[in-house]
Amino acid sequence: MLHDLDQIFQPRSVAVVGVSSDPFKPYGQMLLVPILQSGFDKERIYPINPKGGETLGLKVYPSVKDVPGPLDYVITTINARLTAQLMEDCVAKGVKAVSLFTAGFSETGTEEGRQLEAELVKIARQGGVRIIGPNCMGIYCPSGRLSFAFDFPHEKGQVGFISQSGGNSFYFVRAAVNRGIRFSKAVSYGNACDINETDLLEYLSHDPETKVITVYVEGTRDGVRFFRVLREAAKAKPVIVLKGGVTEGGSRATATHTGSLAGSSAHWDALLKQSGAIRVYDLDEMVDVAVSLLYMRAPKGRNVAVIGIGGGASVQATDDCERAGLYLPALAEDIRGQLLTFIPEQGSMFRNPIDAQIGAMDPEGFARTIRIVASWDKIDVVIAHIASGITPFVPDDAGMLNRMAGAAIQCSQQIDKPIALAMHSIVSAQGWQGVLEAQRRCYEAGVPVFHSVGKAASAISKHFQYQQQQ
Amino acid sequence: MLHDLDQIFQPRSVAVVGVSSDPFKPYGQMLLVPILQSGFDKERIYPINPKGGETLGLKVYPSVKDVPGPLDYVITTINARLTAQLMEDCVAKGVKAVSLFTAGFSETGTEEGRQLEAELVKIARQGGVRIIGPNCMGIYCPSGRLSFAFDFPHEKGQVGFISQSGGNSFYFVRAAVNRGIRFSKAVSYGNACDINETDLLEYLSHDPETKVITVYVEGTRDGVRFFRVLREAAKAKPVIVLKGGVTEGGSRATATHTGSLAGSSAHWDALLKQSGAIRVYDLDEMVDVAVSLLYMRAPKGRNVAVIGIGGGASVQATDDCERAGLYLPALAEDIRGQLLTFIPEQGSMFRNPIDAQIGAMDPEGFARTIRIVASWDKIDVVIAHIASGITPFVPDDAGMLNRMAGAAIQCSQQIDKPIALAMHSIVSAQGWQGVLEAQRRCYEAGVPVFHSVGKAASAISKHFQYQQQQ
Repeated sequence: MLHDLDQIFQPRSVAVVGVSSDPFKPYGQMLLVPILQSGFDKERIYPINPKGGETLGLKVYPSVKDVPGPLDYVITTINARLTAQLMEDCVAKGVKAVSLFTAGFSETGTEEGRQLEAELVKIARQGGVRIIGPNCMGIYCPSGRLSFAFDFPHEKGQVGFISQSGGNSFYFVRAAVNRGIRFSKAVSYGNACDINETDLLEYLSHDPETKVITVYVEGTRDGVRFFRVLREAAKAKPVIVLKGGVTEGGSRATATHTGSLAGSSAHWDALLKQSGAIRVYDLDEMVDVAVSLLYMRAPKGRNVAVIGIGGGASVQATDDCERAGLYLPALAEDIRGQLLTFIPEQGSMFRNPIDAQIGAMDPEGFARTIRIVASWDKIDVVIAHIASGITPFVPDDAGMLNRMAGAAIQCSQQIDKPIALAMHSIVSAQGWQGVLEAQRRCYEAGVPVFHSVGKAASAISKHFQYQQQQ
Repeated sequence: MLHDLDQIFQPRSVAVVGVSSDPFKPYGQMLLVPILQSGFDKERIYPINPKGGETLGLKVYPSVKDVPGPLDYVITTINARLTAQLMEDCVAKGVKAVSLFTAGFSETGTEEGRQLEAELVKIARQGGVRIIGPNCMGIYCPSGRLSFAFDFPHEKGQVGFISQSGGNSFYFVRAAVNRGIRFSKAVSYGNACDINETDLLEYLSHDPETKVITVYVEGTRDGVRFFRVLREAAKAKPVIVLKGGVTEGGSRATATHTGSLAGSSAHWDALLKQSGAIRVYDLDEMVDVAVSLLYMRAPKGRNVAVIGIGGGASVQATDDCERAGLYLPALAEDIRGQLLTFIPEQGSMFRNPIDAQIGAMDPEGFARTIRIVASWDKIDVVIAHIASGITPFVPDDAGMLNRMAGAAIQCSQQIDKPIALAMHSIVSAQGWQGVLEAQRRCYEAGVPVFHSVGKAASAISKHFQYQQQQ
């Protein structure tokens, strides 16, 4: 199985079946373009349409059987009722794997859908073809030059992602990329009629390219094997799991989404807790925990110093940290004394949280504050925070945000404790733009950025807990 | 007291003390500009600086005593040690109220700070002058043409806001304005050495301009009176309360922020629960609940229909709704049948949540789906949701977002149940811009917009609960 998947992630040739020039049937084209753009050898990409012709500078072949030379990988968007014939053709051609964007199988809950899926699996098994899906986006693998979205980066990274949902795979990759994460492999596996979540998880746990595994799962057909593999994987590397469908309504929803048997919520709760995986509750939290794992050393304890600007923001930051299971020890007198040599007492807070108003005017003062506080041996981790409207009279001050990010980057190279930067209170599109720019600068320098202190604290707390149990 | 505050919100003349042309002392200017821009009568705005001269086209007076004619309201940014003399001058001039941006009083925790504040109060009380602050931003009141930020709207609205934190008052007003909320009065009251949170709450509860009260409070010096007034206020109109400093660290933080005695967290929990106020846990949630109260009728029950695009997003939406205390009843067969007449079964979900893939291509189909589902008598409220990357191959499709918003607006006028729109999964600045534009269109048409289904569900659930207890 591991060998099968290696071949699927690194195919020598690809066909996209169902490429049409009809704008109301755009999916074939839309799956073809990202592969072309990823730098896959153009000579080995084969659009398929019975009408033949040419598209995007490539010759269109009437059938997979007409493709010259060997064909490893087939992606299809054609109607579910036509897929059995396609699978026969793929068997005849010696195709290694077929990924089906096509929906209309078991997830519909109809007898016809179930039968179509069963027939597909039967033909594939007999003919030695593996299936991804159906009802999925398929594979994004930069090193194999496979992609299913034109805006996914071509450079590879360290995060592996498997997702029962196609929509979630778009959003998670985009949101993670935005935060500096790059992927080894991302697989949207849909109904999982052949290659399933457990196979993929097992593969990623052995994949040397993958340092962190992220999983969106709605259900599994073999819970015993899934949790055995998950426990093994979590011993090898961090595995972050989002289980979709944990409430009664949510569980019913997964049945109509990917036809999966979700199992009881209590069952999942207990097994996930024992598995050693890091559990999260939405995709944004999954990004946050991945950012912490990739960009921070694990803190040695739960004591945090919170340094930022704004009294109300500092109070909220503190509540959020302590609710997430971190603690803010009251600042020692000598540390406080060192700060008071250059920060005016008026308008500031010095007990931890530290509201160093000076920072609003002077990034160097902000950096100095961080260095002094980080030198205190009671502190395991520093969270620095900056509002998008940090200079309250000048909202969306991108320049200030950028200078403060510079100060955090400088500090991260000078202190021996993990540091996270929270850029929060984003209101306008302009403010968001400023945060994105400062954030890019940070992650390029290896400093993790979160969009609230609470999110940073929760991710760091889960990171610490994971490290503890190792 | 109510009369005193009336006069403070509608002063006939204003002086800003500490106006300097030195760019390192910008605060006087920065507090002067928003008042000038708000349309306050220029003839009655008096910048004060011992050096005299002219600023922003206005004559600068050496002292408040030199101001010609009556002076109602004074805002000051000068050093704390100089404020006692200023207060003496204000008494001599017959000023009605002084708002102190100046910090360096009791919040520092020093003996000097406490004494300076006590002296100020003594002079003011003896001389009949009221104090806002110190350590605060003061008053934003569009009808009185007072403001402390150049970008706050000049039009008035229905939300009253009182905030112990100045920074929070900037962020909350901006975040709320962005979502279509306008304010009757917003007061950043800081240390509350004279006029305090309870006085302001009592005033807003009687203020005919104010329909919804929002409160950020860290502590109170008179808990018995605060909770009595809060209970009365919550009977008169909805009061949303964010209590800052609920954890051990957070409670310590409030002491250094505004010098307030926070009281035990358990005490606040119990009293807030009994008060009839709506409790929230951060400023974004306060905006969400205010949006629900202002833009939605309260639903008659907790049964929600969730209609949107994307299987994974629908599963997450369902889990988030049920965790927030709403329920998704499984769709009745006849409703399902009506949908199947125009939505292809393949790739859709029909049980509630409803993933009407047709909507991705056809806003009219989306609107029709909403109308049919809303006609079902088991449903109390509809949450429609749209991802910023709704057409997954075209991220940040602002046009599509706008058309879907149009469909939701159209439906809101045709159905007899409350509807909320969630625009979620925003990654880029361009995506954020598209959401802001569609959101503006929605709130101008009276349709509430939230930034995730979970946030919508939580706000609606609290709105319902508030309505139930009335």
